Amino acid sequence: MAVGLQPPQQVLKVPGIRLGAVSAGIGKAQRPDLALIELADGGVCSAVFTRNAFAAAPVRIARSHLEQRMPRFCLINAGNANAGTGAAGLQSAEAICEGLAQAVDCDREAILPFSTGVIGEPLPVDRIQRSLAPLYTRLEEDAWMDAARAIMTTDTLPKAVSRQVVIDATPVTVTGIAKGAGMIRPDMATMLAFIGTDAKMDRNIADRLLSRAVTASFNRICVDGDTSTNDACVLLASGAAPMKTVDSVESSGYDLLCDALEDVCAELARAIVRDGEGATKFITIHVTGGGTAEECRQAAYAVATSPLVKTACYASDPNWGRILAAVGRAGIADLDIEGVSLYLGEVLVAEKGGLSGTYTEADGLEVMQREEIEITIELNRGDCRETVWTCDLSHEYVRINAEYRT
Amino acid sequence: MAVGLQPPQQVLKVPGIRLGAVSAGIGKAQRPDLALIELADGGVCSAVFTRNAFAAAPVRIARSHLEQRMPRFCLINAGNANAGTGAAGLQSAEAICEGLAQAVDCDREAILPFSTGVIGEPLPVDRIQRSLAPLYTRLEEDAWMDAARAIMTTDTLPKAVSRQVVIDATPVTVTGIAKGAGMIRPDMATMLAFIGTDAKMDRNIADRLLSRAVTASFNRICVDGDTSTNDACVLLASGAAPMKTVDSVESSGYDLLCDALEDVCAELARAIVRDGEGATKFITIHVTGGGTAEECRQAAYAVATSPLVKTACYASDPNWGRILAAVGRAGIADLDIEGVSLYLGEVLVAEKGGLSGTYTEADGLEVMQREEIEITIELNRGDCRETVWTCDLSHEYVRINAEYRT
Repeated sequence: MAVGLQPPQQVLKVPGIRLGAVSAGIGKAQRPDLALIELADGGVCSAVFTRNAFAAAPVRIARSHLEQRMPRFCLINAGNANAGTGAAGLQSAEAICEGLAQAVDCDREAILPFSTGVIGEPLPVDRIQRSLAPLYTRLEEDAWMDAARAIMTTDTLPKAVSRQVVIDATPVTVTGIAKGAGMIRPDMATMLAFIGTDAKMDRNIADRLLSRAVTASFNRICVDGDTSTNDACVLLASGAAPMKTVDSVESSGYDLLCDALEDVCAELARAIVRDGEGATKFITIHVTGGGTAEECRQAAYAVATSPLVKTACYASDPNWGRILAAVGRAGIADLDIEGVSLYLGEVLVAEKGGLSGTYTEADGLEVMQREEIEITIELNRGDCRETVWTCDLSHEYVRINAEYRT
Repeated sequence: MAVGLQPPQQVLKVPGIRLGAVSAGIGKAQRPDLALIELADGGVCSAVFTRNAFAAAPVRIARSHLEQRMPRFCLINAGNANAGTGAAGLQSAEAICEGLAQAVDCDREAILPFSTGVIGEPLPVDRIQRSLAPLYTRLEEDAWMDAARAIMTTDTLPKAVSRQVVIDATPVTVTGIAKGAGMIRPDMATMLAFIGTDAKMDRNIADRLLSRAVTASFNRICVDGDTSTNDACVLLASGAAPMKTVDSVESSGYDLLCDALEDVCAELARAIVRDGEGATKFITIHVTGGGTAEECRQAAYAVATSPLVKTACYASDPNWGRILAAVGRAGIADLDIEGVSLYLGEVLVAEKGGLSGTYTEADGLEVMQREEIEITIELNRGDCRETVWTCDLSHEYVRINAEYRT
């Protein structure tokens, strides 16, 4: 039921990054479920992880490995989150890193493990171990789509995006893949993203670029930085492109890379929302005229997470009272609701605490019947603005989440 | 689909408080939709209102009237929330107060107006005005159930509870009625409650008693004190009982009244959850062993509002990972997830970050298949505890809220 989501097109390989996928038989279905990404020696890696206190075993191991040395491999399995698995889960995650380290002759700490899928089931370590050597032999630069498919869980389509920019007269590629569909409210194993580029950069610049891109993309489809047990986003920069190293924000190419990375991440983030469980509408919420960016986000998240707003969108019902009620409870200090204006699409619906004199239900209905709905809330308190993306709440969402695991 | 909710039984009249209800034709259905409650002269009133910045016109008028003098009447209509109606809505709310003031010969400010129903429609003032005189003539002490039915909106059953306590050798009655069913996440016109007693008390004691009772009841089915545009809870104390005035927390009878009022409010609050839109399960969430009451509430609300937990309950699926993931994102500082123990009913499910050695899926399933599910989360950080009540998220919830208004 993905909303306006097309299969990826023109996914570009990234010099210095090889990928592969195999069927390890981790879940019930016979499908590729184990992916490996290899970063060329000398490459740079940055990663952000879930802030959930209930972080899964692979997240804890990956964090620890990343602190110890620059990674060479990301090993990702679908079908099992290795979360809620206690001490045994940590041992399992270390065991598959150790297995891959032996197969490819590198340090165990050079491997970052990632898992996504059902919580609380023991990871089938043996089946993964048996697949590691064959997986390594099939790595190639042109396998981003294979990896994108292997990391899917409830996704209906693989998600992959590429951009190219020219830096120092050299074309530089940014390609990213992501999985995630349970993003209506990301409580659990929902989101993984891997972004590769052949740009040359310092580690601190990689951290900065990734942080900026994630803030403007994956964190704008999240609630309060509400993250799952297994969420992670990784940037791999191979440095294979013949360009000067980006080592400061003043470096030529920094801004271009910044834009390209934000662009890739934002398109992947929107793809996750479009593929949201049960989604029938893609909803963009703009909050403008805020005194601070924070209060814009508060208002936008209150609307984006309101089940009443989401069900109204599902029903194509211009129930603007629900939207204003959500803004009213967003916790914005001294909010004067009379100052707030509400637009559905380009239609002015409410102002001065009541309906606009020009509004007609037919106009509102026409906007709400669209597959893509824009809601704009003008707070009239300042110059800040924020945008958040979400989807509706449908019967299908309840069905998927009531039946998952059963 | 109410869960374990019975029609009210033994609803006791309260000396000094008269009620009545008529069909004013406010909504489409021909049913009693206008209720009036009269407090004897010399009685005391306390009220708490929604903290939503988008407060409806009647809430704003009621707040203002209450500041000016002690009320004599609560006038409540269903079928129209008079919210999002701007300046015209304020005029409408004042107009019906003025109409009633003339009909009964009292100050306009002696009347508190309340409305519940659809947001953004103009209040049918004329139809209400025509009904006021006939409504006043039929007031009687034995009409709590008539009023309980008249204030219903999507409720499937009226909600009324009575308790009696003996103070100064005199039986004292506390009777309350409430309406509300959209309480899964109370964004809008969901909750009204009116509690009457013949106890004699000072206004400051009434405020204190009501505040305590609401905190332990209606605010334990709410998210972050998340309140609707029209929520209100009113305590009317007629003072008709032959007892000494309760004028301090040391007065004889204070503790008894406190318990009775909390009891009435808690049962009404749970009745609202049991009648929750689409509810098929009644869920009690205990968080124990917290360092502070606040962190207990944070954890409980995170679980209570998680769509993933709610859909798992709907499916009778012991998906304990979703519960721990919600606790993990509750924002509790330095939470050590390894210290957390999780029980479904009396079954220990998880401890030390993973499954308990004694747990079996069959045991968890048996608990989840019950109509009433208890979830206990032991944080192992201190001695505080809190309880929150909620219900599941079902297909019916989506249907009700997608179809409401259409």
